Amino acid sequence: MFTKEQLNDIFNLAQTLRVYTAKDRPLGKIMASIFYEVSTRTSCSFAAAMQRLGGRVIYMDETSSSVKKGETLEDSIAVMAGYSDVLVLRHPTPGSVMKASQHCRKPLINAGDGIGEHPSQALLDIFTIREEIGTVNGLNITLVGDLKNGRTVHSLARLLTLYNVQLRYVSPPSLRMPSHVVDFVKEHGISQEEYSSLEEVLPDTDVLYMTRIQRERFETQEEYERACGHFIVTPKLMTRAKKKMAVMHPLPRVFEISTEFDSDPRAAYFRQAEYGMYVRMALLAMVLGKC
Amino acid sequence: MFTKEQLNDIFNLAQTLRVYTAKDRPLGKIMASIFYEVSTRTSCSFAAAMQRLGGRVIYMDETSSSVKKGETLEDSIAVMAGYSDVLVLRHPTPGSVMKASQHCRKPLINAGDGIGEHPSQALLDIFTIREEIGTVNGLNITLVGDLKNGRTVHSLARLLTLYNVQLRYVSPPSLRMPSHVVDFVKEHGISQEEYSSLEEVLPDTDVLYMTRIQRERFETQEEYERACGHFIVTPKLMTRAKKKMAVMHPLPRVFEISTEFDSDPRAAYFRQAEYGMYVRMALLAMVLGKC
Amino acid sequence: MFTKEQLNDIFNLAQTLRVYTAKDRPLGKIMASIFYEVSTRTSCSFAAAMQRLGGRVIYMDETSSSVKKGETLEDSIAVMAGYSDVLVLRHPTPGSVMKASQHCRKPLINAGDGIGEHPSQALLDIFTIREEIGTVNGLNITLVGDLKNGRTVHSLARLLTLYNVQLRYVSPPSLRMPSHVVDFVKEHGISQEEYSSLEEVLPDTDVLYMTRIQRERFETQEEYERACGHFIVTPKLMTRAKKKMAVMHPLPRVFEISTEFDSDPRAAYFRQAEYGMYVRMALLAMVLGKC
Repeated sequence: MFTKEQLNDIFNLAQTLRVYTAKDRPLGKIMASIFYEVSTRTSCSFAAAMQRLGGRVIYMDETSSSVKKGETLEDSIAVMAGYSDVLVLRHPTPGSVMKASQHCRKPLINAGDGIGEHPSQALLDIFTIREEIGTVNGLNITLVGDLKNGRTVHSLARLLTLYNVQLRYVSPPSLRMPSHVVDFVKEHGISQEEYSSLEEVLPDTDVLYMTRIQRERFETQEEYERACGHFIVTPKLMTRAKKKMAVMHPLPRVFEISTEFDSDPRAAYFRQAEYGMYVRMALLAMVLGKC
Repeated sequence: MFTKEQLNDIFNLAQTLRVYTAKDRPLGKIMASIFYEVSTRTSCSFAAAMQRLGGRVIYMDETSSSVKKGETLEDSIAVMAGYSDVLVLRHPTPGSVMKASQHCRKPLINAGDGIGEHPSQALLDIFTIREEIGTVNGLNITLVGDLKNGRTVHSLARLLTLYNVQLRYVSPPSLRMPSHVVDFVKEHGISQEEYSSLEEVLPDTDVLYMTRIQRERFETQEEYERACGHFIVTPKLMTRAKKKMAVMHPLPRVFEISTEFDSDPRAAYFRQAEYGMYVRMALLAMVLGKC
Repeated sequence: MFTKEQLNDIFNLAQTLRVYTAKDRPLGKIMASIFYEVSTRTSCSFAAAMQRLGGRVIYMDETSSSVKKGETLEDSIAVMAGYSDVLVLRHPTPGSVMKASQHCRKPLINAGDGIGEHPSQALLDIFTIREEIGTVNGLNITLVGDLKNGRTVHSLARLLTLYNVQLRYVSPPSLRMPSHVVDFVKEHGISQEEYSSLEEVLPDTDVLYMTRIQRERFETQEEYERACGHFIVTPKLMTRAKKKMAVMHPLPRVFEISTEFDSDPRAAYFRQAEYGMYVRMALLAMVLGKC
């Protein structure tokens, strides 16, 4: 056990450090990385971003003991906010991030909540277009694959309405872009068209945004192969495309893009992942002031 | 395979870096965070503390491959001590931290060992009182809930005997403060009284320390509700309390404190978690010299 | 949702940060720690090494969601390379690290791939000999235990052929050094001899390299005990050894070395683990330029 003198020493130093932390924080701010759903890539991207800014990271995930003891999300966030200067939260339940942010006394960044919004993905997609092509305006942007269930393409289509673009959707009939997105795009005066063939739209496409189609979306293996066999990027297919354009994919891919295409300068999907880190650096730097 | 020249280059550089690490260590000291029992909050608090001091963290937990291969705790600690400048250890077995520290050639901080001591929690509790009220001496401190099984209240009551305080215990009859704590407090000449009603002690309480009562402590749901229904902090109840006082809780809470009370200035429990980080900064800074 | 102006602010800042990251990187480089197989100790050693050099770490393991979604190792590595400046990879499949490195645009360090090579372990073993004895040349080096299945002793024997040493192998008859290693050592003109008794070789041994023998290698408990009972380092046995020599072990040990020997100055096995960190610092510093 401690003596009274030891306690006083500890408490006086703790108080000094409390003031020091609040005022100066010269040794790096802390980001709390809170993932109630595994997403190693998003987590790594944010952790790299924070650390490249000179900050530090603490980690909490869904195996947390407090969560098991029945603590609410709001309480967990309130505690983590006490340890950190900014919080990054991913949660499987739509709306939960918004709810958590209402009581949070530190900036909270949404890293995805279920089928809800995933804002940093849409930002990095548009940043990729800007960096790869030089501009977003005036482009033909073709979204391919499972447009029904893919939340990344929903967020992207919505955010692209802020630009002067032409959208094309290529998907199997059963996986078409849902009407809530189509209506939103229409209301914002952006032109959009649906296609069932990739070859048809490829020649004047500036950005080809591929997505993964999950096997479970189809009843039989045959239906799956019949639907997906048409949407595979290969070096041969890409001879029909522009010389200056970008092929993107939110990753992980399965077979939608042949690995033989990886060495093509138009293959932007791995750079796209890296651009995500710079966008997250920007988001963190903006909410933190400077680190 | 390597050439002899490559090996020499590597080994000469390794030796230089060894000397550099031992002498200067200008780039931050390393804390080994070793948790044989999940405790995300304590782990995050220590990691944030070390990093706010400019240090770095490495992590080992109970899923470690060496542990699975039958390595003893002492051996695991000896290896981690080779990588780090200070170790923080949590273990489910009482006495294990003390045992491990005997052979450890670096400072080792106890982050809890089963039903044994949990010293940094008691320190942060008293630091909270000091920061919230301005002093510890002369206060009426009321401990509420499961006083039988809660190790935090045992450690706190013991440590408070170093101050001039008056202790009150409020609990269901089956969850009273155990005699080993009551005897200890008595021997140190600190006044203590037991109550079965929160209302009775509330008006002159300076610190209300709430704890969680686990459902499993009671045979039936009725018994549980009858016992616990009396110990819930609400805005209405708190109209009877002093204007300047602090409500504390080691967290996580379940329903012992109504969330409606969270915005009350006397609700100190989330600040309490944050104070813990400053106390851990102080402990780390003291054992490390300065970081 | 964002406004167009907000997007422009974010993207302009992201671009500035991208240039800044590529050019200056004054705030520490990033190491991606990628473990498809649990190895807490190797992971901690690399993380401590990188952080002692002023760098930062991001973590990916086999529970990664992308791996579960069927992503190839090459794709996972390509994404992590976008976030980091150097990658450390451990994988259970022999050859996989080499395969992954072929497409990786950043330096990739092998932290072990199954029964394949484990280069940094052999390096640290030789660095330990150098630091403990002062030289490697001219030494009698005795390898003891399961020489058939232990990949560390295979790598070590091969790498020692670059030095002027004499090798001795002590093992149960069923766990002798395999012919591919014996042949390799012979081709390089290094003398080697097999023994079945530790006592016989001990008096003129300069380095005694102990390894763990797994119970599962033997059909019955009796056979196991008969074989292994002969290869245990105790203070009593070590009275027959030189005063200046080193006892090493890749750890974890089970009972091959009595804990009573730990306080002997010749017990080098815990320092050996620490030397590993300096070797990894050297490897990282070399591939990164300086951090």
